[in-house]
Amino acid sequence: MTVMVGDSVNTSSCHESRLLIVGLGLIGGSLAAALRVAGFQGQIAACDPDEQEIARGIEMGLIDSGGTQLAELVDDATMVVLAVPVLAMESVMANLAEALPNASADVVITDVGSTKATIRACAQRVFGQVPTNMVLGHPIAGSEKSGVAAANPRLYVDHKVILTPEPNVDRSALQRVRCLWKACGAEVLEMDVERHDQVLARTSHLPHLLAFSLVDTLARQDERLDIFRYAAGGFRDFTRIAGSDPVMWRDIFIANKEAVLASLDDFEAGLSRLRHAVEAGDSDALIATFDRASHARHYSTLY
Amino acid sequence: MTVMVGDSVNTSSCHESRLLIVGLGLIGGSLAAALRVAGFQGQIAACDPDEQEIARGIEMGLIDSGGTQLAELVDDATMVVLAVPVLAMESVMANLAEALPNASADVVITDVGSTKATIRACAQRVFGQVPTNMVLGHPIAGSEKSGVAAANPRLYVDHKVILTPEPNVDRSALQRVRCLWKACGAEVLEMDVERHDQVLARTSHLPHLLAFSLVDTLARQDERLDIFRYAAGGFRDFTRIAGSDPVMWRDIFIANKEAVLASLDDFEAGLSRLRHAVEAGDSDALIATFDRASHARHYSTLY
Repeated sequence: MTVMVGDSVNTSSCHESRLLIVGLGLIGGSLAAALRVAGFQGQIAACDPDEQEIARGIEMGLIDSGGTQLAELVDDATMVVLAVPVLAMESVMANLAEALPNASADVVITDVGSTKATIRACAQRVFGQVPTNMVLGHPIAGSEKSGVAAANPRLYVDHKVILTPEPNVDRSALQRVRCLWKACGAEVLEMDVERHDQVLARTSHLPHLLAFSLVDTLARQDERLDIFRYAAGGFRDFTRIAGSDPVMWRDIFIANKEAVLASLDDFEAGLSRLRHAVEAGDSDALIATFDRASHARHYSTLY
Repeated sequence: MTVMVGDSVNTSSCHESRLLIVGLGLIGGSLAAALRVAGFQGQIAACDPDEQEIARGIEMGLIDSGGTQLAELVDDATMVVLAVPVLAMESVMANLAEALPNASADVVITDVGSTKATIRACAQRVFGQVPTNMVLGHPIAGSEKSGVAAANPRLYVDHKVILTPEPNVDRSALQRVRCLWKACGAEVLEMDVERHDQVLARTSHLPHLLAFSLVDTLARQDERLDIFRYAAGGFRDFTRIAGSDPVMWRDIFIANKEAVLASLDDFEAGLSRLRHAVEAGDSDALIATFDRASHARHYSTLY
């Protein structure tokens, strides 16, 4: 057992004896890869509806075993990480609830979903309340690639993981989830569910909505996609962002609808102000806006 | 003399004996740096109102000489490259018109401005018409850095340079400007002024406007800039784009106002459609939009 002194934990230690990853895509696969690189000593199993993903995960040395049936895999897991798309979370939790009576007594459950209020609501519907051994979380990391083949052991290094524990959470469960992510090189933060969903709506969901919208609008106008040949710096970034997984993002916009629409309201008010400045040729207003925007980036922590 | 076979030009050949760069910032400095690396044999002079930039350019070995007075530098130039902000172009052209009677008989003039209709209009006002030895152009390359200190000899490698020659252009002047950019490793294209301004409004100016607007809106809301700490992938790209030079972009939005506002109209119509899909939780519409957007990127040539 590693000695802990206050909050000072050996960041490379995660002592789960058997981790079960449910959903073996980029996020789940990268978690397994990061743990392997960190010298994780436990077993890693995965559950995924796609048998080929399981086979690939074993072949890549990321997981020890796996299958398509959750009930058969949950028995001796000490930690279960739900890494499925947001809208698949409820049915997976329902399967988990059925299987849990057979599970280890000290099992801890966590997830990696990009929205937290809807996932908390799933847990409340399935379990009656969020179980005290469940710690909801969200690693702020990703890629335009998907699938276990794209697993990257450094995906979480120096990235933030936001945990959104309920007030009555079991403190040792929370600590074990913190250890899991610290072992992957991440910085672990905590905030409440509502704040998480508002912050992510503004800093992640809205930018993706704008990128999807701009690229789609141009693609509709330009059937031959000719103008995409001239993509300058700004647009190249937009097309890359808009290359993200459509199903994952459909789920996010449906799950975090209210916070996304509120942030969109604010954006549209700001865009309208800037539009008027362009229409009026208002040099001072344009410079003031661009100055403020260009300074703001210094507050953005690279990760 | 390099032998040319049809369009097959030795891409590293640019035979100007004296190049004068007016405006020694990132763009002008990178042009000098690229030519040096390509083994350019001619002299390179620069004119800039900032004496320190000239001194730095000489110290860095990018230019042979320079000064703050255009009239003193233009005499024996064989090619003049105007690399000043868009709204400074008219006064620079007026200075150039005064100095040109003393210039070499076969001097060629080109520019690097991000908008072409307003610069063509400057030339028409200053010279009565666009001189046949003037070839307007736009290298689609840049950086969030500025100043000659940020000069990068590879800035134009595999990037596109769009030339927008007038119908009555001197063909050898056009060919010499093509050679200049090919020597820097760029791909040189031609299109008319109006098409250039429309394409760039959509693929560069509008994305920058959206990034400036989003980052400014969030900075206004969040005085402590706390949410910038959680910047996820999409937002990090937006803050980087919004870190671009405020004066340069003020000029672009004033100079290309009509095309920018037209592209903004289209964008707002598309965003409104997407907003309704989010409000309605219309899964099919969201997936269709995201699918189209994510496929469009395959048409975007990386550079």
